[in-house]
Amino acid sequence: MQQLPWRSLGSPYQPLEVLDEEQVEAIHQASLEILEEVGIEFMSEAALALLAQSGAGVDGDTGTARFDRGLIEELVAKAPSEVTLTPRNPERRLTLGGSRVNFSLVGGPPNVHDCERGRRPGNFADYCDLVRLAQSLNIIHCISHQPVAPVELPVETRHLDCYLATLSLTDRVYHCNAIGAGPALDGIEMAAIARGASLDQLGEAPAVLSNSNVNSPRRFDGPMAESLMTMAYHGQAVVVTPFTLMGAMTPVTLPAALAQQNAEALAGIALAQMVRPGAPVVYGGFTSNVDMRSGAPAFGTPEYAKATLASGQLARRYGLPYRSSNANASNVVDAQAAYESQMSIWAAVMGHANIVYHGAGWMEGGLTASFEKVILDAEMLQMMAAVLEPIEVNEDTLGLEAIRQVGPGGHFFGAAHTLDRYETAFYQPMLSDWRNFETWREAGAESATQRATAMWKALLKTYEPPVLEASVAEALQAFVRCRKEEIARRAA
Amino acid sequence: MQQLPWRSLGSPYQPLEVLDEEQVEAIHQASLEILEEVGIEFMSEAALALLAQSGAGVDGDTGTARFDRGLIEELVAKAPSEVTLTPRNPERRLTLGGSRVNFSLVGGPPNVHDCERGRRPGNFADYCDLVRLAQSLNIIHCISHQPVAPVELPVETRHLDCYLATLSLTDRVYHCNAIGAGPALDGIEMAAIARGASLDQLGEAPAVLSNSNVNSPRRFDGPMAESLMTMAYHGQAVVVTPFTLMGAMTPVTLPAALAQQNAEALAGIALAQMVRPGAPVVYGGFTSNVDMRSGAPAFGTPEYAKATLASGQLARRYGLPYRSSNANASNVVDAQAAYESQMSIWAAVMGHANIVYHGAGWMEGGLTASFEKVILDAEMLQMMAAVLEPIEVNEDTLGLEAIRQVGPGGHFFGAAHTLDRYETAFYQPMLSDWRNFETWREAGAESATQRATAMWKALLKTYEPPVLEASVAEALQAFVRCRKEEIARRAA
Repeated sequence: MQQLPWRSLGSPYQPLEVLDEEQVEAIHQASLEILEEVGIEFMSEAALALLAQSGAGVDGDTGTARFDRGLIEELVAKAPSEVTLTPRNPERRLTLGGSRVNFSLVGGPPNVHDCERGRRPGNFADYCDLVRLAQSLNIIHCISHQPVAPVELPVETRHLDCYLATLSLTDRVYHCNAIGAGPALDGIEMAAIARGASLDQLGEAPAVLSNSNVNSPRRFDGPMAESLMTMAYHGQAVVVTPFTLMGAMTPVTLPAALAQQNAEALAGIALAQMVRPGAPVVYGGFTSNVDMRSGAPAFGTPEYAKATLASGQLARRYGLPYRSSNANASNVVDAQAAYESQMSIWAAVMGHANIVYHGAGWMEGGLTASFEKVILDAEMLQMMAAVLEPIEVNEDTLGLEAIRQVGPGGHFFGAAHTLDRYETAFYQPMLSDWRNFETWREAGAESATQRATAMWKALLKTYEPPVLEASVAEALQAFVRCRKEEIARRAA
Repeated sequence: MQQLPWRSLGSPYQPLEVLDEEQVEAIHQASLEILEEVGIEFMSEAALALLAQSGAGVDGDTGTARFDRGLIEELVAKAPSEVTLTPRNPERRLTLGGSRVNFSLVGGPPNVHDCERGRRPGNFADYCDLVRLAQSLNIIHCISHQPVAPVELPVETRHLDCYLATLSLTDRVYHCNAIGAGPALDGIEMAAIARGASLDQLGEAPAVLSNSNVNSPRRFDGPMAESLMTMAYHGQAVVVTPFTLMGAMTPVTLPAALAQQNAEALAGIALAQMVRPGAPVVYGGFTSNVDMRSGAPAFGTPEYAKATLASGQLARRYGLPYRSSNANASNVVDAQAAYESQMSIWAAVMGHANIVYHGAGWMEGGLTASFEKVILDAEMLQMMAAVLEPIEVNEDTLGLEAIRQVGPGGHFFGAAHTLDRYETAFYQPMLSDWRNFETWREAGAESATQRATAMWKALLKTYEPPVLEASVAEALQAFVRCRKEEIARRAA
């Protein structure tokens, strides 16, 4: 199967902007007002203690922290504008920040689907197969937290099996569990083992990241706050993402949603800087809307696209790396899945998102991971990667000599200029079928989704695990065994 | 069926640009070199005579015209930067230029398809139904030339039946036939009758447009050139569109394709200005690539998106209105049709195309008009229209009062700020299904394409023709009758 080589992507274009400077400033000011006057709840004693100690105004009764604008601005300014993450294979290193673009596998769905076996609850076998697909697709730079939840595994130790599988089946950057300090630390320790590094060394050259979803409006739950603090303490990257559906978790108006998102994101980022000044953080934006008739969440909508572009402007206002998503709400891998995802991808990439979560495989507004959607998304992401290849204008590419040679009404198929370049001139699709109707019909008249089924099956069939030294594999297995025993002992 | 109201659209955002100023200038200079040294063939004595008389260097043997750069720049500068087209219903007036955005129905396919009746040759009944669909969809601003070719009608008089049907079934701006002076003039005269205007009055306030496809490389065929001249003579708008597939009709490199496209477009625009200085013209861009393995044309590709964005920069370089397309190469209304079309739509709209041809209904790289695709495209175009609604940031939309009222972890469904705005807060989709999986499955588990079938059928069922005064209808019928007799007499 033809695909683009692994490579680091960046946008050569100016970001697309939907707000003017004054509007960005008004949203910024409104978010400072929220932080100063209304505050953010942290359901964690540890977080509240640190917040109080670092200068926030903490109300112990309600667990609310208020930040004056000087404090917030000072803390946010400590965050680096760029973070490089180095996984066990240094060739799979990622940089988040500036105009870099990275795509991450789907993360989090409780269900999984493919067109042959149908929809089923998440499970460990599918977890592993989705990770294998990501490893097989060069356009997927990063493994999100649990491409599907392996719900049959015990909750207390599930994260250990997942880390071990991810580290065995891929050599990509992966995400740590963002629920609780313990699971996060396990992910960090295993990354250190895989890299042959100490925790201190890992802190100097981070390997992993985690995503803290704020429980909007204005609440960090305890396990989320403590995972964030653990990641920051060890110098690993924290993405702070308010999950802000307009009309439900925020007011219905986009500026209000952005102001609230901004306040929540900055609060989490400030907490990370209190833990470790200079800790790598990423500004997460995930503002969409609900269907006001039913309350159902919607993604890849016009409002979502505008929020995505505007959130990039806010992240750049603070010089922070920016996370967005490839989201859609379709129940089936059809035209809707494609057009909603394209809305998300264009807005994310043209809004200079540095990491696009759920890059491949997200369906049903995040309730299902889809094997066919992994392929469909990989094609759309590859197409964006090709759009991002800068245009070179020079004597050679202006091709005047070739234009002189071919007469009016002629063709360029046989021109030397063509023959020298045709093999690499254009993006070669993976999934798109450009045959004419008759040929396509005779070959079985398959839709893109049907072709995708054949493709993920072929990828799994030819999948090869990346090299992992036996001693490292054993050390990882020993760590998991030992931690499982410890967790069982504590539970007893 | 819920849809957005008819309205004039414009982009509040800066255009997305893929070339820097120096690159635009290098392409401009290369195109001047093509015009000066290599020239353009015009297969029309009338065109060549006017070209020679107006200062171009004409080689009578080869039919080639060469333009020195002063001449081209002088002529192109005469073209207006904006054109307003007024159809028989002045409320359906369109403006092309600046940041205005208009969407046109599919034009030109020889075949037609819907999911109930399958694929079949173009015919007059389907022509009429496609025009009825356009009239029923507020997002389709304009009727292209023949949404499908009615191949059973006699070639000599087909255009008359088409004009009459279009003028009876819609009140939108329509396209004249671009093959030959006679068919173009018939379209102009019928527009004048429908408006109750003289040809002179129509020249002052144009009603119609036509699209001249250059036979790239570097050839205007006779009927195309003469239709262009007729349109310009009567002050009606001419879109000049080189059909430049990289690797086939141009060199494989994008800058060469753009230089050639630019030379060809400017040559046609210059000819229009020779006919009537100040004649309204539109810069057409239609640069895509072929599949270099098979020679098959491809659309909605990464190269197509870049060419679309770059062509907008060239059009703006000359202060000309810009035409692009919503193109794709899929054989079926599936995910590929959607993602290739989204590539085209995002590039066209963010590249400030003033008119997007094939806005709704184009399939198979233009070989088929699809009823389901009309619906799918209308949804995607409406979504872009919603993206183009500017964001208003003010005290009201920043909603701090609402944010203060809702506590951490609460929700905004019942807030007064929400209740006052929820009905119009978000784009309400036509085709997208946001129900949860279980509800969607129980309701029949239909894909977007299946839902589209029900929708075009419902639209045709409830279609109502726009008001047309009986005297005008009679005058149009009389014109057609009389012209058919004249054509028959001449043929005899």
